[in-house]
Amino acid sequence: MANIGEQSVQFLNPVYIKSTASVVGPKEGEGPLNFDIVLDDMLAGEKSWEFAESQIVQKALDLALRKAGVNISQIDYILAGDLLNQSISSIFGVKDFNRPFLGVFGACSTMGLAMSFASMLISGGFAKNILAGASSHFCAAEKQFRFPLELGTQRTPTSSWTVTGCGATVLTNEKQDVGITAITSGKIVDMGIKDANNMGAAMAPSAVDTLIAHFKDLNRTPDYYDLIVTGDLGHVGHEIVLTMMEKEGFNLNKNYNDCGIMIFDKDTQDTHAGGSGCGCSATTFAGELFEKLKKGDMQKLLFIPTGALMSTTSVQQGESIPGVSHAVCIERVV
Amino acid sequence: MANIGEQSVQFLNPVYIKSTASVVGPKEGEGPLNFDIVLDDMLAGEKSWEFAESQIVQKALDLALRKAGVNISQIDYILAGDLLNQSISSIFGVKDFNRPFLGVFGACSTMGLAMSFASMLISGGFAKNILAGASSHFCAAEKQFRFPLELGTQRTPTSSWTVTGCGATVLTNEKQDVGITAITSGKIVDMGIKDANNMGAAMAPSAVDTLIAHFKDLNRTPDYYDLIVTGDLGHVGHEIVLTMMEKEGFNLNKNYNDCGIMIFDKDTQDTHAGGSGCGCSATTFAGELFEKLKKGDMQKLLFIPTGALMSTTSVQQGESIPGVSHAVCIERVV
Repeated sequence: MANIGEQSVQFLNPVYIKSTASVVGPKEGEGPLNFDIVLDDMLAGEKSWEFAESQIVQKALDLALRKAGVNISQIDYILAGDLLNQSISSIFGVKDFNRPFLGVFGACSTMGLAMSFASMLISGGFAKNILAGASSHFCAAEKQFRFPLELGTQRTPTSSWTVTGCGATVLTNEKQDVGITAITSGKIVDMGIKDANNMGAAMAPSAVDTLIAHFKDLNRTPDYYDLIVTGDLGHVGHEIVLTMMEKEGFNLNKNYNDCGIMIFDKDTQDTHAGGSGCGCSATTFAGELFEKLKKGDMQKLLFIPTGALMSTTSVQQGESIPGVSHAVCIERVV
Repeated sequence: MANIGEQSVQFLNPVYIKSTASVVGPKEGEGPLNFDIVLDDMLAGEKSWEFAESQIVQKALDLALRKAGVNISQIDYILAGDLLNQSISSIFGVKDFNRPFLGVFGACSTMGLAMSFASMLISGGFAKNILAGASSHFCAAEKQFRFPLELGTQRTPTSSWTVTGCGATVLTNEKQDVGITAITSGKIVDMGIKDANNMGAAMAPSAVDTLIAHFKDLNRTPDYYDLIVTGDLGHVGHEIVLTMMEKEGFNLNKNYNDCGIMIFDKDTQDTHAGGSGCGCSATTFAGELFEKLKKGDMQKLLFIPTGALMSTTSVQQGESIPGVSHAVCIERVV
């Protein structure tokens, strides 16, 4: 382990990824990416969307354990978080696992935050195996942050579609083919954006801030990576990152994408600016990107979940929407 | 460093506490404990209670830095959390510090969680200095979780009074007189309590679970400590802990107290079951307990912030209120 520059840690011994698991809703299942479990309906047999989200969390964590061949008793800590008030879907999703629970909150950057914390805890020798996950649910999020779904409120072109799903992973100190080799933790960046229907614009400057810190701290250029992927900036935020990074002298035209763009088909799925929510980057990583790394279709990934830090209260009181982005460098290490 | 037992870490080299700072509201200032800054009114000159809480966070973090003689540029990470939806008071309280922000959520156990994470990050060599804090605000919490204050709703005898305040600390790898020597991270414990006006009963079983794990993992008995102090169980939860621990064979009669009992005067301040909220344990530790350790009036403290994991939605949907408690062992190490 070595601390590098201002905001980064480089792990001289990687922290390995033993498994990932993804559980998504029906709309995500119809999109272009692959996931482990696609639910038939948004309630998943539960009586509320919030209960459904907790069940999705439980299913994803459980599947990650089974795919890793790890018993829950071998898990030292569970790290999880979500968008609902007081992270309630994570709480009820993890409570029956009966292992120490460390709650994390980074809005939609939560998967990056959980993986960053987990990799430091494992690299530091405080844990052998950590189960980490992040989730969101379209209906629960719309109900909490925006309008009752029953109103059928028209959505603005810059608005994004909260992904229904949970991505989970088992991180370990036991050698595997794919590992986390570095992290860059984000600062809160506030450019004064106040439009709660334009999260891409609110979060993009924080992604740029973390990207530049990452390249500077590790003395790398973007071409080190096969893919640089932000969390849920969608089409609007992705464009802003490309423009801002070019002004800073970094050309991302060849290898930069966003999970919010990847997860839905722009032409047929009517999701406007793309996907968002903690589940967007978490399921895209767990379902699609990790499998590519594992199969050797990709060697080096820079995964940067992005979070918009707001509540209905902060927006109603006229506050801006700051962003935070946590970068995790994931590579084939065989 | 050594992992001990199921849920604990013992630091062979302590993680040192360089400073603490406490900022509280007027009612807390009238209570029996000492704090650094007592506000004149609940709005602290801001236009809303939420803005006021953010300002309290900012003031406490800033004061912790000044008392430590540490410049913000020397801080590797800021860890903070609170009770408001999407941890918004922490977000706006820390955003201008411009350092990597790692958000944590453990409801009222947040100070214990932040100190646990921070001590592992420092002990693991990932940080030299970490700024950690947790906050709550009576009016903002009542408004969000219970009733509009203007209604003057009568409070039940088991209800507690959310503390207005933020406790903050600078943790460091640089030798000091007081340090964190062990932590025990809590599991989520759900005994089926559904009364949102009886948080003490909801959280007490998780405190017992963490206490027993701590004594077992470290092979200690309660008399190792000068003081064992839970976060915000108040009079009701404190009594439950005493009874449950006695049944488990641990006698806590001599050296067990609770920050929710300590922070208000039961006879004159009309707070029913006592104090609660993330700020309760955070300010009691920062304002009172750390000073006693620093002066040598106390040698060994077991600090166990306790959290009730609920949201208005989970309560309205008939869910129970699980608890989680994170123990931090803090000792004079000169």
